[in-house]
Amino acid sequence: MGNAKQTFYGHTPGLVPGSVVYVGKKSTSDLFIEVFNYNKESYDEKELKNIEEAYSFIDSKPITWININGLNHIETIEKLGNHCNLHPLILEDIVNTQQRPKIDEYDDYLFVVLKMLYFNENGELSIEHISFVLGNGFVISFQESDGDVFDSIRNRIRNNKGRIRSMGSDYLLYALMDAIVDNYFNLIEVMGDKIEELEDDLFENKQNDNITYQIQGLKKEILKIRRAVFPLREVVNRIEKSEHKLISKKIRLYLRDLYDHIIQVSENIEIYRDMIWGLMDMYMTTISNKMNEVMKVLTIIATIFIPLTFIAGIYGMNFENIPELQFKYGYFVLWGVMIFIFVGLIYFFKRKKWL
Amino acid sequence: MGNAKQTFYGHTPGLVPGSVVYVGKKSTSDLFIEVFNYNKESYDEKELKNIEEAYSFIDSKPITWININGLNHIETIEKLGNHCNLHPLILEDIVNTQQRPKIDEYDDYLFVVLKMLYFNENGELSIEHISFVLGNGFVISFQESDGDVFDSIRNRIRNNKGRIRSMGSDYLLYALMDAIVDNYFNLIEVMGDKIEELEDDLFENKQNDNITYQIQGLKKEILKIRRAVFPLREVVNRIEKSEHKLISKKIRLYLRDLYDHIIQVSENIEIYRDMIWGLMDMYMTTISNKMNEVMKVLTIIATIFIPLTFIAGIYGMNFENIPELQFKYGYFVLWGVMIFIFVGLIYFFKRKKWL
Amino acid sequence: MGNAKQTFYGHTPGLVPGSVVYVGKKSTSDLFIEVFNYNKESYDEKELKNIEEAYSFIDSKPITWININGLNHIETIEKLGNHCNLHPLILEDIVNTQQRPKIDEYDDYLFVVLKMLYFNENGELSIEHISFVLGNGFVISFQESDGDVFDSIRNRIRNNKGRIRSMGSDYLLYALMDAIVDNYFNLIEVMGDKIEELEDDLFENKQNDNITYQIQGLKKEILKIRRAVFPLREVVNRIEKSEHKLISKKIRLYLRDLYDHIIQVSENIEIYRDMIWGLMDMYMTTISNKMNEVMKVLTIIATIFIPLTFIAGIYGMNFENIPELQFKYGYFVLWGVMIFIFVGLIYFFKRKKWL
Amino acid sequence: MGNAKQTFYGHTPGLVPGSVVYVGKKSTSDLFIEVFNYNKESYDEKELKNIEEAYSFIDSKPITWININGLNHIETIEKLGNHCNLHPLILEDIVNTQQRPKIDEYDDYLFVVLKMLYFNENGELSIEHISFVLGNGFVISFQESDGDVFDSIRNRIRNNKGRIRSMGSDYLLYALMDAIVDNYFNLIEVMGDKIEELEDDLFENKQNDNITYQIQGLKKEILKIRRAVFPLREVVNRIEKSEHKLISKKIRLYLRDLYDHIIQVSENIEIYRDMIWGLMDMYMTTISNKMNEVMKVLTIIATIFIPLTFIAGIYGMNFENIPELQFKYGYFVLWGVMIFIFVGLIYFFKRKKWL
Amino acid sequence: MGNAKQTFYGHTPGLVPGSVVYVGKKSTSDLFIEVFNYNKESYDEKELKNIEEAYSFIDSKPITWININGLNHIETIEKLGNHCNLHPLILEDIVNTQQRPKIDEYDDYLFVVLKMLYFNENGELSIEHISFVLGNGFVISFQESDGDVFDSIRNRIRNNKGRIRSMGSDYLLYALMDAIVDNYFNLIEVMGDKIEELEDDLFENKQNDNITYQIQGLKKEILKIRRAVFPLREVVNRIEKSEHKLISKKIRLYLRDLYDHIIQVSENIEIYRDMIWGLMDMYMTTISNKMNEVMKVLTIIATIFIPLTFIAGIYGMNFENIPELQFKYGYFVLWGVMIFIFVGLIYFFKRKKWL
Repeated sequence: MGNAKQTFYGHTPGLVPGSVVYVGKKSTSDLFIEVFNYNKESYDEKELKNIEEAYSFIDSKPITWININGLNHIETIEKLGNHCNLHPLILEDIVNTQQRPKIDEYDDYLFVVLKMLYFNENGELSIEHISFVLGNGFVISFQESDGDVFDSIRNRIRNNKGRIRSMGSDYLLYALMDAIVDNYFNLIEVMGDKIEELEDDLFENKQNDNITYQIQGLKKEILKIRRAVFPLREVVNRIEKSEHKLISKKIRLYLRDLYDHIIQVSENIEIYRDMIWGLMDMYMTTISNKMNEVMKVLTIIATIFIPLTFIAGIYGMNFENIPELQFKYGYFVLWGVMIFIFVGLIYFFKRKKWL
Repeated sequence: MGNAKQTFYGHTPGLVPGSVVYVGKKSTSDLFIEVFNYNKESYDEKELKNIEEAYSFIDSKPITWININGLNHIETIEKLGNHCNLHPLILEDIVNTQQRPKIDEYDDYLFVVLKMLYFNENGELSIEHISFVLGNGFVISFQESDGDVFDSIRNRIRNNKGRIRSMGSDYLLYALMDAIVDNYFNLIEVMGDKIEELEDDLFENKQNDNITYQIQGLKKEILKIRRAVFPLREVVNRIEKSEHKLISKKIRLYLRDLYDHIIQVSENIEIYRDMIWGLMDMYMTTISNKMNEVMKVLTIIATIFIPLTFIAGIYGMNFENIPELQFKYGYFVLWGVMIFIFVGLIYFFKRKKWL
Repeated sequence: MGNAKQTFYGHTPGLVPGSVVYVGKKSTSDLFIEVFNYNKESYDEKELKNIEEAYSFIDSKPITWININGLNHIETIEKLGNHCNLHPLILEDIVNTQQRPKIDEYDDYLFVVLKMLYFNENGELSIEHISFVLGNGFVISFQESDGDVFDSIRNRIRNNKGRIRSMGSDYLLYALMDAIVDNYFNLIEVMGDKIEELEDDLFENKQNDNITYQIQGLKKEILKIRRAVFPLREVVNRIEKSEHKLISKKIRLYLRDLYDHIIQVSENIEIYRDMIWGLMDMYMTTISNKMNEVMKVLTIIATIFIPLTFIAGIYGMNFENIPELQFKYGYFVLWGVMIFIFVGLIYFFKRKKWL
Repeated sequence: MGNAKQTFYGHTPGLVPGSVVYVGKKSTSDLFIEVFNYNKESYDEKELKNIEEAYSFIDSKPITWININGLNHIETIEKLGNHCNLHPLILEDIVNTQQRPKIDEYDDYLFVVLKMLYFNENGELSIEHISFVLGNGFVISFQESDGDVFDSIRNRIRNNKGRIRSMGSDYLLYALMDAIVDNYFNLIEVMGDKIEELEDDLFENKQNDNITYQIQGLKKEILKIRRAVFPLREVVNRIEKSEHKLISKKIRLYLRDLYDHIIQVSENIEIYRDMIWGLMDMYMTTISNKMNEVMKVLTIIATIFIPLTFIAGIYGMNFENIPELQFKYGYFVLWGVMIFIFVGLIYFFKRKKWL
Repeated sequence: MGNAKQTFYGHTPGLVPGSVVYVGKKSTSDLFIEVFNYNKESYDEKELKNIEEAYSFIDSKPITWININGLNHIETIEKLGNHCNLHPLILEDIVNTQQRPKIDEYDDYLFVVLKMLYFNENGELSIEHISFVLGNGFVISFQESDGDVFDSIRNRIRNNKGRIRSMGSDYLLYALMDAIVDNYFNLIEVMGDKIEELEDDLFENKQNDNITYQIQGLKKEILKIRRAVFPLREVVNRIEKSEHKLISKKIRLYLRDLYDHIIQVSENIEIYRDMIWGLMDMYMTTISNKMNEVMKVLTIIATIFIPLTFIAGIYGMNFENIPELQFKYGYFVLWGVMIFIFVGLIYFFKRKKWL
C-alpha cells in the first residue's frame, strides 16, 4: 500500500522549483553506469566507475548510449547535467519518480520521461521511472534501479542485428522507447490472465470473501497502468510531429509504428477497464443467485414440514373428544395423508423449477 | 479463451522493429496465390504455384489483383515485398495479425490493414487479419487463411457485372473493402439475434446459471468487434480525403458511401453495446423478482401455519385444569377457529396481491 | 421483432455498389405519383399514372414538387433517375431504407435522406425512409409508402398561405424537412407519456411482470429515435453552411431555425434517455421495497409465534414431575404470560416502525 | 405534470414557419408595458396603455428600455415587430415559450432568448420564457407573465446607482441578463437544500415510500435546469466574441464576467447531478441495510427457539419407554440445558456482531 | 454544512456588477499587510499598519510582494485598487470568495484567482479564496484569512535560496502559484488515506451505519476539489501561452512545469473519483454478502430442526394405535434416526460449502 501511495501522490511539496531531490523508493541502489559506443563498423561497451569517464564518449563522434541506474545518486546526475548543460527543471524531472510521461524540447536536446511497468515478484504492479536525454549523437537513459527491458537492444548493438548500428541517435531513442512499449504488451497479457482467473472463480462459485477487494485491486492497477500509458500517446505523437533538428525524417515511419502500438495498448486497457467494471456486476449477480439458492432450500424445507408439523400438532392435542384418535387405523391413514401432501409439494416445486 | 488472448494482447514483444514474424494461429495453412488480370475487354484468372510468376502481372499494364492466403509463408511475402519495394515495417504489419486497422501512405503505394470478422463453426467470433497493397495498376491482398468474402467480386470480374472492369485499381481496392464491410452487417445481425435470444431466455425465466457468463461473453465480443471496426472510420476517411495520386477523384463518392456504411455499423455496435449492458440490469431484476416469489411462498406458508401450530400446541399441554379440553365439541369448535384464521390470512394475502 | 431487425441491421450485403435494390418491408404498396407546380400567381396539382408525365414539369420553369410513394417500384425510380441524371449511388440510397440520414452535394442537385418516425396502429415505432432530390426549380420526394406529414404543406401551396408560393425550391425543401422535424415533437411527446405511464405503474406498485421488458423496449425505441434524429443535426448544419448554388442566402435563417428545432428534439431525447435508464433503478428499489415488506410480515409472524409455540411445547412434555402442571390456575397464568409476550413484541415492532 | 409536458415537448407542430402563435400557459395575463428612458442626467419612467405610445421612445436618442409582460397579446407584439422591422422568425421565437436559449444576430439588432427559472408557490420548478431585442439605443424585453427579477435594475436606473445610467444599451442588455443569471444562484441553492433534505431523510431512515419518486423528481428538475442554463454559455460567449456594431468593446469585460457566472452555475448543476444520481445508490444501500436488520431479527429468533422447541417436542412424545421422563428432576435438568443453549446462542450472535 | 453551502452556491445575487462586497465567512479577521521588497543584492521585509504605506513600495524599482490577509477589510482593498488603477470587476472578484479560478489579462496587469485547499482542524475540507495581481515589478496577493502555504517562499527570499531573488515579478507569481499547487498534493494524499481507511473498514466488515454517508461525503469533497483544481489547468495554460509583456519568455518553462503538476493532481483526482464511486459498489456487495451469511445460518438451523421437530410431533400424537410407541427401544431407535438425519444434513451443507 505504501507503494500505492508513492505512485499516486507523487511529488514532494515545498521544494524550490528545479531542486534535484530524489523522490522514490529511497533504496540505496548502487550506481551503475554503462556506455555503448558504436557506428556501422564497430562498437565498444564499457562499465564506468564514475560519470566523468563518460564525458569523452558524449563528445566523440559515433553514436553513444549512456545508461545510468540509480536515481538516488543525485550528485552524479547533477555532474552529468552540468557537463551536458541540462536545464535544472530537467534534472528535477529525472529524479522525481512521480513525474508523468512527457516530452520537453530544448534547443540542443530532447527530454523524454516514460514509465517502465512490470509485476514484481509479489505479483504487485511496479512502476519504474525512466527518462531519456537525446542529444547530438548520444542518448542518456536514467533508470530508477537495476533490471530493464533493454537486453534485446544491447544484443542488437553487439551483434549488429537489424538497422540499429547504421542509424543515428534518434533511432536509438526510438528503439529504447519501443522496447518499453513492447513490454506493456506482456503486462497487458498478465492483466488479461488475472481477469480471466477472477471470472473463472466467479463462474465456479468459489467462496472467496476477498473477491470485492481483488476486483477493486484490479481497478486500481488498471487505473495506474492507464495513467502511465495514456500520456505516452501525446508524447510519441509530439516527437513524430516535431520539427526538431535531432529527429530525422526517416525516423518518422518508425515513430508512427510506435504510436500505433501505444494506441493498441491503450485500446486493450480500455477494454480491460470495461471488463473489470463488468466483473463487479457479475459478482453481484453471483451473490444474488447464491442467496436465491439458499432461500429456495429454506422455503422448500419450511413449506413441506411446517404444514405436516401442524397436522401432527393437531393430533397431539388433549381434547377428550377427538373422534379420529379412536379410529383403529387413524395413525396409518394420517401417514397416508402426510405422504400425499409431501409428494404434492415436491411436485409443486418441480413445476416451479426450484428442484 | 486462447483465441481471446491472441486477439486482445497481440504483438510479440522483443522483436527487432521491421522484422517479419508471423504472429497468428501458427496453423500451417497452405500457401495459395491467385491472380486476376483484367481490363474492360477481357480478363484472365490464374492460380500460381510460386510468387515469382506474379511479377510479370504486376508490371503489366491492365488491372491486376493478386490474392495471397497463408501469412505463415513469410518467405514468399518477403520476396514479393522486395520485388515491389515495400518498406520493412509494412511487411511486419502484413504478418502481424494483431495490427489494428490502419492506412499508411507511401510515395508509390497505399497500405491498408483491415479485419475480416465472422462467427466460426463453434459460434465463436473469429477475427482474420487482412491487408491490401494498392500500387499503380495492381492490388495485392494478404489473407491469414482460406475462406473469404470476395466471391461476389470474383464473379463481377468474371461476368463483367457492374463497373468493376471499367474502373482502375483504386475501385478494386474499394470493392474489396466494401465486401468486407458488407459482411460486418451479417455479423451485426448475428449479434442482434444473440441478444434477442438472451432477452427471451430472461423473459421466460429459463433457469440458466450461465447467463451472467453469456452476457459477459457478449460484452467481450462486442468490444472486440468495436475494436476491429471503429478504427476503420478513420482509415476510410483518410483514404477519401487523401490527395494520393493512386486515388482518383471519381472514386471519392464510392469511398464516401463506404464511410457511410461503416458509420452505420458503428452506430449499430453502440446500440448493441447499450443493450448488452442493459441485459445485466434486466438479469438483476429477474433474479430479484424470483427471490421475491420464493420469499412470498415461504411467508405465506409460515404465516398461515405457524399460528395454527401454536394453537394446536396450546391444547397439547398437559395442565391438569384446561377447561376447554373437557368441552364436548371443543375439538370441532377449534377446527372452526382454525379454518377462520386460515381463510382470513388467505384473504389478507389476496388483498396484498401476493396470491 | 422482425421489424426491429429490419431497422437495426439494414443493408443487404453482397450487392454490387450502386445497384438499386429495394430493402424494406417488401410490401407491394401501390405506386403513387403526385405533382405540385406553382409560382406566386398560380398553382397546379396532379396525380400521375406513370413517371414519364412528370418530365415536362421538372423541365418547366415554376417550382415543381414531385412526390413518389412506393420504393418497391424500382423501375419507375430508375427511369426518373436516368431522366434527371442522378448518380447510381443516389438511386441505391433512395431505395435502401436502411440508409442513415445524410446529405450529398452534387454539381446539379442536392440529395437528402431523412427518417419519418411515427407510432403505428399497434403502438410500435415505425421508421419510414424518405429522400429528397433538390434540383434547379424542383424537389422530388421519395417515400416508402402511403401516409405522410406533408398535408400542411399541400394546403399552404393550395391556399397560398405563408411564404411558400413566393419562395424557391430551396424553401420547399426546407418546408418539407421542417414538417418532418415538427412531427418529431409529437413522437417525443408520446415517448414522454409512455415514460410517465411506467413511472405511475411503478409508483402504484402494479404487479407487472413485464416491466423490465417494457423498460428495455423503451430503451430500444429511444435508441432508434436517437439514431434517426441525431445525424440530422449534421445534415441541416451542412446544408446551412453549404455554398451550393441551389441554396439561396435568405433561406439560411430558416435552416438555422430548423437546426434549432432539431437540437431541441435531440435534447429532449437525451433527457428521456436519462429518465428511461433511471426507470430501471426505480424498478430495482421498488422490488427491494416489496421484498422488505414481505420479509417484515414473515419476521413479525415468526418472531411472535415461535417463542409462544416453544412455551406451549414445554408444557406438552410428559415429564412426571412438572410442578406447574398441577397448579390450579397454571393454564390461565400461562395465557397471561403469553399475552404479555405478544403485546411486548407488538410494541417492539411498532418502535422499529415495522408495523 | 402538465407543466412538465409543456416544458419538455414544447413547439406546436404543423405551423407555417414564422407564424406568431403563443405557445405557453395560455393564461390570459394582462398586457403590461413599461418604459424606462434615461441618460446620465435624467430618467423617465412610464406605464403605457398601448404599444404605439412606445414608438417615440424607441426612436428618441437616450437609452430606452421597454418591458412587455404577456406573451399572449400577440397583436401588440406583431405591431411592435412591424414598427421595429423584426424578422418574422424572431416574432415566432418571442412567443414560442419552448424556444431554447439562443442568440441571433441581425444587421440592425441582436435577438436573445433566455429562461427565467424559479420555484413557484407549490414548490414546482417554473420556467419562464424571456427574450430581448437589442437595437440602437433601446432594449425591448418580452416576458411571459408578471413578476421578474429586474427590480434591482429598475432601482439602479431610478437612483443612478452604479454605472448603468452612464452606459449604453448594450450595458442594459448585460445588466438584464446578469440579473437573470444571478437568480440562478438562488435556484441552485434551493436544489442544494432539497438534496440535503433527502440525504437527511435517508440518514434518519425515515420511512418514506415516495423517496424513489422524489429522487426521480429531482432528476427531472436538474435536467430541466440544465437544459435552460447550458445553452446560455454559448449565447454569452457568442455575444462577447461578436463583432456586432451594437456591442461596444468596453462591455466585453462585463460579458466575460457574466460568462464566468454561468460557468459557475453550470458546474454546480453538474455537481448536483452527480449527487442526485448518488442518492439512488444511497437509497439502495439503505433498503438493503434495513432488510439485513429484519433478517437478523428473524434469524436470531428462529435459531434460538427452533432447536429448543425441538427438544420440548422430544419429551412430548408418547413412547412408553423414555427413561428421562421418570427422572425426578428431569424437568429441571432440561430447563438447565435449554438455558445453556440459549445463552450459548446469544453469545454466538454477539460474537457475530448481530446483537 | 453551512460551509458546504457557502462553497457550492457562492455569489450574492442582486448586486450591482462591480460592487465590492465581501462574500465569505464574514469573520472579523484582522487586517494584516506584509511587504517584501527585494532584488539580487538585498531584501527588505515589513509589516504595515495601513495600506497607504505600501504605495511607495509598489512604485519603487525592485521586486515587491505585498500580501494582504482579510478580505473583509473592503475599504483597504478599494483604496489599493484605486491607487493601482484596478478595474472594478477585479475588486469584486478579489472579495467574492465564490469566484472560480480564472485569469484576466489587462493592459497593465494580470489578475489571477486561485483556491487554497486544506482540511481544517475538524477534518473538513476548507476552501480559501486567494487572488493575485501581477503588475510591473510587483505582485499583490489577497488572502481570505491568516495562515497560508507561502512560508517556503518567504524563506527563499530571506535566505536568497534558489533563483527567486534574481528573477522578476513573473517568477514571484509563478512561485506563489507553485506553492499552492504543491499543497494540493498533500490534500490528495489525505483523500487517498480516507479512501483506504474506508476500504479497510469495508474489508473488516466493521458495522458502520454511516458508511453510505461517509462515501457520499467523500464524493462531495472530491467534487469540490475537482471544481477548485480543474479550471487551474486552463488558467496556467493561458498564462504560459500569453503574449503579455509582464510574462517573460524564460518563465515559460517554469509555467510548463507547473502545468504538468496540475495535470498530475487532476489525474489523481480522476482516479480517486473512480475509486470512491467503486466504494459504493463494494459496500453493496458487502451488505449482500452479510445477508447471505445471515440467511445461511437461518436456513441451516431451520432445515435441520424443522424436520426433526416434525418427527417428534408425530410421536407426540395421541392416537390410540401407534405401534411404534409400544416398542421397547422405540425411543432410542428414533434418536438414532434423528442423529442420522442431522449428520446427513450437515454433510449436505458441507458439500454446498455453506459450512
